[in-house]
Amino acid sequence: MFLARHSVKATNALVSGVRALASQAGPLVNLSVDNEGIATLTMNRPPVNSLNLELLQEISKTLDEVSKNKSKGMILTSSSATVFSAGLDIMEMYKPDLNRAATFWSTLQEVWIKLFGSNYITAAAINGHAPAGGCLLALSTEYRAMVKGKYSIGLNETALGIVAPTWFMDTFCHTVPIRQAELALTAGKMFPVEEALQLGLIDELATDKEDALDKCRKFIKNFDKIPPLARSITKQKIREGPLVRLKNNREQDVAEFLNYLKNPKIQQGLEMYIQALKMKSTK
Amino acid sequence: MFLARHSVKATNALVSGVRALASQAGPLVNLSVDNEGIATLTMNRPPVNSLNLELLQEISKTLDEVSKNKSKGMILTSSSATVFSAGLDIMEMYKPDLNRAATFWSTLQEVWIKLFGSNYITAAAINGHAPAGGCLLALSTEYRAMVKGKYSIGLNETALGIVAPTWFMDTFCHTVPIRQAELALTAGKMFPVEEALQLGLIDELATDKEDALDKCRKFIKNFDKIPPLARSITKQKIREGPLVRLKNNREQDVAEFLNYLKNPKIQQGLEMYIQALKMKSTK
Amino acid sequence: MFLARHSVKATNALVSGVRALASQAGPLVNLSVDNEGIATLTMNRPPVNSLNLELLQEISKTLDEVSKNKSKGMILTSSSATVFSAGLDIMEMYKPDLNRAATFWSTLQEVWIKLFGSNYITAAAINGHAPAGGCLLALSTEYRAMVKGKYSIGLNETALGIVAPTWFMDTFCHTVPIRQAELALTAGKMFPVEEALQLGLIDELATDKEDALDKCRKFIKNFDKIPPLARSITKQKIREGPLVRLKNNREQDVAEFLNYLKNPKIQQGLEMYIQALKMKSTK
Repeated sequence: MFLARHSVKATNALVSGVRALASQAGPLVNLSVDNEGIATLTMNRPPVNSLNLELLQEISKTLDEVSKNKSKGMILTSSSATVFSAGLDIMEMYKPDLNRAATFWSTLQEVWIKLFGSNYITAAAINGHAPAGGCLLALSTEYRAMVKGKYSIGLNETALGIVAPTWFMDTFCHTVPIRQAELALTAGKMFPVEEALQLGLIDELATDKEDALDKCRKFIKNFDKIPPLARSITKQKIREGPLVRLKNNREQDVAEFLNYLKNPKIQQGLEMYIQALKMKSTK
Repeated sequence: MFLARHSVKATNALVSGVRALASQAGPLVNLSVDNEGIATLTMNRPPVNSLNLELLQEISKTLDEVSKNKSKGMILTSSSATVFSAGLDIMEMYKPDLNRAATFWSTLQEVWIKLFGSNYITAAAINGHAPAGGCLLALSTEYRAMVKGKYSIGLNETALGIVAPTWFMDTFCHTVPIRQAELALTAGKMFPVEEALQLGLIDELATDKEDALDKCRKFIKNFDKIPPLARSITKQKIREGPLVRLKNNREQDVAEFLNYLKNPKIQQGLEMYIQALKMKSTK
Repeated sequence: MFLARHSVKATNALVSGVRALASQAGPLVNLSVDNEGIATLTMNRPPVNSLNLELLQEISKTLDEVSKNKSKGMILTSSSATVFSAGLDIMEMYKPDLNRAATFWSTLQEVWIKLFGSNYITAAAINGHAPAGGCLLALSTEYRAMVKGKYSIGLNETALGIVAPTWFMDTFCHTVPIRQAELALTAGKMFPVEEALQLGLIDELATDKEDALDKCRKFIKNFDKIPPLARSITKQKIREGPLVRLKNNREQDVAEFLNYLKNPKIQQGLEMYIQALKMKSTK
């Protein structure tokens, strides 16, 4: 579903994607648990936390660990100073090994199912840009504090010539009214923090990352007197519609993704991106 | 589902309906495309654009034409100075030829499916009253600019003793929260422009028709940098629920409409309307 | 789904529940119809209108009566000075006779189906606290006027370690956006009247019970010019989703409730409650 016409925004996002491949170092995910039982999962794939297979696999394992640890809650954040996550790594889609691509997509589904339907409390400390897949992860938690600044958040797939999958849309519509979701997604709109707050896409502004983490901790501790089992079942029931929809459709959803990758026009579009990125990065 | 008790509003709406039959002239629909590829579909069935079979057939054909022309977007408006569209023509329901009535309803379904699910960008320049079917057409587009003045918009079927079909309701609920939809539809409420703006039923006020058209053009041009195929698939996916619901239920929906017309009480109610209209129009 | 950790709120609610068993007097429900055809159903199971089998059966019969009387509308209220209804009677769940428990739950389903899907106009004059099942009844009507004061309303099941059934959630989501519903229900939040108004959980504040009743009457009379059959079908169609969901799932919903009661941990939790209540009531 890539088209020939591309925006500057799209190119910039992809520059980030290519750079991400170049500079991996250290564990892809850090997990810490404080003395109150609140876990913090920090994505750490410099420079922009592009979601490739390995990062998604690490997130998926770490979500299991949080669940086993019986942490009361988990905060999702980033080790980057300016980016929460730049979204899916385009390099997973360009001339892909189809087996790996299928595993990639299936792992993304798993991460979302675990995060959106988790039995522990979740919150996102959004300390930088959160486009596309980065926005998806943030919206899959139950609360969002975002650092003030020139950052933005949104499902901007359309601007890149891509279509967000139904479960991305469901996640967005779980947060804001469907009318606003339609306007945002058809425009591929990235919301500056203040606008995101006004729309309800995020819940609170934070002065910096530490403040965002504090606000997330406070959100999680609000539930200290709520019996956790009843809480988690309640949450999972309210989120049942989107969860069941994807769970019943995982194979077809993977097949659609692979078909999309097999489309020569889409590979052509991706190639143009990569070229543009290379030219930009050699300057 | 007509009942014996009728409101003044209902009578007024029907006066319009009868007049509409009397004064047809010129093509029922005008289509123009400007040099930026934006089409304008102007309904032209004086005096109030009552939606009869012929007007609906013309709208349906014209929507196909816009799609084939690969226009980037389409604005829906009216040639009347005070009415966008008065809604369905009551004369299609009074002592109907059942074959024609079935075609009438099926054509209305087609128009909605094409408009609500169009692959091009749609906007409505609402230059006057938009009750019932007129409101449906406006809400089926993606953006509404409405001319300030003593105009109103709403699904007022209930006030006329009629029940809006499920897909009318779905269209309303795609625009405003279900709680507000329930209050509006059970009351058959017609919203003055300012209230309509506040509720989100319309998006912007315009000083006159030209301003409304300008605002629609601006809305459409906002998407100039968005790849159109990705945009249209995104829109159709977000609107999939209501679209699939009607597509899977078209025959039964027609059958329900015919059954309704066959009900002697309803024909009696219609006869009373027509009589009231005749008396009013001979004064 | 009861857990060992209980809140003070929960204990207080249960104190009320136990007291309710002790002090029944007079008819459990009063029904009056004024000269404009507006019925008032007053719950009268002192002190807090705990919903036990007998009260639910009386409400269910009275709703049938209102329907047969062809009242134009019905106001739901309470004879208590401070409580609308404290919700389900815990004593129906502690060491229950399973046949009675099945009838209890099935009757609750019936009351909701009749009230949420009624063909007459409904409104709630909320003259005091409305937690859990009390909130459900109020939200099942079409309009809520609540008396100012230190009262609160909400689905606080989670705070008690219980999970609200899907149809409770559906009723809440029919009134407020799903994002707000998730935050409210996972927190078991009880909303003070002003907050409830802001969220849209209630529609108007009233100075006292008489004022609340007046506002309900005014709401009902707003529809005097709307043909009632068209109105009721419109309402039932808009509410069809939640209604059909429960109607298709009643037996399984009862089975789930019974399974829940059979869980030794839950009975243990209930026993702790009862003990706490006894200690409190002997002081």
